[in-house]
Amino acid sequence: MANQEFNNLLSNYKIKINELIIRELKNRRPKSLYNPLIYFFNSGGKRLRAILLLLCARSINNDKYSEPINQAIAIELLHNFTLIHDDIMDNSVKRHNKKTLHLKYDISTAILAGDSLLALAYEFLNKGLTQNLEEIFSEFTRALTVVCEGQALDKEYENKKRVSVNDYYEMISKKTGALIKATCRIGALTQTNDKYIIDKLGEFGELIGIAFQIQDDLLDVVGNERLFGKKLGSDLVEGKKTFLLVNALKKARENDLKKLNKLIENKGINPDQIIKYIDIYKKLGIIDFTQKEIQKFHQKILDILNELDKKIFVEELREFLRLIITRKN
Amino acid sequence: MANQEFNNLLSNYKIKINELIIRELKNRRPKSLYNPLIYFFNSGGKRLRAILLLLCARSINNDKYSEPINQAIAIELLHNFTLIHDDIMDNSVKRHNKKTLHLKYDISTAILAGDSLLALAYEFLNKGLTQNLEEIFSEFTRALTVVCEGQALDKEYENKKRVSVNDYYEMISKKTGALIKATCRIGALTQTNDKYIIDKLGEFGELIGIAFQIQDDLLDVVGNERLFGKKLGSDLVEGKKTFLLVNALKKARENDLKKLNKLIENKGINPDQIIKYIDIYKKLGIIDFTQKEIQKFHQKILDILNELDKKIFVEELREFLRLIITRKN
Repeated sequence: MANQEFNNLLSNYKIKINELIIRELKNRRPKSLYNPLIYFFNSGGKRLRAILLLLCARSINNDKYSEPINQAIAIELLHNFTLIHDDIMDNSVKRHNKKTLHLKYDISTAILAGDSLLALAYEFLNKGLTQNLEEIFSEFTRALTVVCEGQALDKEYENKKRVSVNDYYEMISKKTGALIKATCRIGALTQTNDKYIIDKLGEFGELIGIAFQIQDDLLDVVGNERLFGKKLGSDLVEGKKTFLLVNALKKARENDLKKLNKLIENKGINPDQIIKYIDIYKKLGIIDFTQKEIQKFHQKILDILNELDKKIFVEELREFLRLIITRKN
Repeated sequence: MANQEFNNLLSNYKIKINELIIRELKNRRPKSLYNPLIYFFNSGGKRLRAILLLLCARSINNDKYSEPINQAIAIELLHNFTLIHDDIMDNSVKRHNKKTLHLKYDISTAILAGDSLLALAYEFLNKGLTQNLEEIFSEFTRALTVVCEGQALDKEYENKKRVSVNDYYEMISKKTGALIKATCRIGALTQTNDKYIIDKLGEFGELIGIAFQIQDDLLDVVGNERLFGKKLGSDLVEGKKTFLLVNALKKARENDLKKLNKLIENKGINPDQIIKYIDIYKKLGIIDFTQKEIQKFHQKILDILNELDKKIFVEELREFLRLIITRKN
């Protein structure tokens, strides 16, 4: 498949998904509840989860009439529900270069907007399903539970002095991996009962999620600020237990370790210290190490796709992976 | 059915429901997420919605083995999810005479605890269902949406000078009626496909919900503080647009109207003014009027039960209504 053709497919999906979401929100009352959500969805977002669900379904059955667009939207709404509530909990100021919902309005509005977005997600999930209803509901709900548990771990780690690499993996598997795993499994479940395909696509999704999160941690340090949509080094400023930090803590000795411990102790650093800390990462080889770890995940993901290649059409999923690998934001 | 026998049934259900909820929460990790929920459920609550769902199911099929205990718990968890988030939005200090969750812990913890409670609600909803899966999910989700819309209206009304009696009914139908309607419909849907029974039990539930809320407004003024579990007159202090206030605004003239408008203007009164405002209610006949309105609802509810009496066993639902009528808290 030509690169341009794939990009067009994705961009058409994104437009369609956005239109359907905004149209639904505009039809609803009271405005005080739904207008904040219109603001939120108009602020941006790549809709990658919705698109991935559709690609997984297409990999099994490329029939336009069985396209699970409602379930794709459901996953996207669930994801955005978590963003709205996480932004409150994390005191985030901006999302997609726009004010976060609780700052644009207030905390009460953002809590309630998030809640009703989750309700809307379940409404979409239930639309036009023809098979595996119980399994799809169960996957969706399980993902919601696990994402909450992942967010709880993330908050726990804020106050925890020692977060191991294993702790980190547990947290991102729950916070990011579980939802993308469910995305792929639900995409599959709308088209097939073949357990092998469902499980393999689930593994594919989980690894995509984990790799995506590690790359996110990396982009915070080496990304392009304008493309990335937030200030570089903000994870350092907030003292977040990123992949880079937990690995740096493992490798650092003496003076470097002292500085990293100071960051932990103070739960973050001043913005004018960012370059100094990135230099520590570089000196310890953390940037290279992180890039190599991401590549290992990409290889694992490719292996899964090669296995699946015997049973389904994986080319678009390969394209999707390429897109994720080369992303700058 | 003897009164004592019914009370025992209810009290056994309550114990069973509480045990199952607490056991589930204790089995889960991380503790930082689930311990706050254990605190919340140990603080109290009558579990009336769960019990009502079970009574609706029993009215159709009194077979212990088809008891929809998981769906009853699901409704109860959904209700408590709304309480936890509403308490944040309303800045509530106490619930069941205990500190509200966001004050016992913090707002982030309470947001996330509420979210994961909703996830748990959907997990329970999906357990052991043998029929009408899609309809039950749809009822449950619709109720969640409408409850959020009702809460949004409630927040809107806080800043609205003129709230009519119709506005009030719209708000409580959504905020309280919708969930109890869904409670009864889901109880029915677990046992039957008979549309007449499902619809009538739904109407029964909606009216129970509305009557319950008006009575709640009344108890804030005439209740027993110790039994009611919160300070009398707190709705007046907070300037809440209760059934009593919106009707008093309709009836009041001259000096009384001026005082009521002052309450609206200042979004509440000082606690030392409570007695003065209750006296206005009394003078305007609002207390009597409210009691009569509640009685009208009770008559409507009895009429529905009399209709249903030809098709199902309504005696326990009559007992439930009696319990609601005579409640002091």
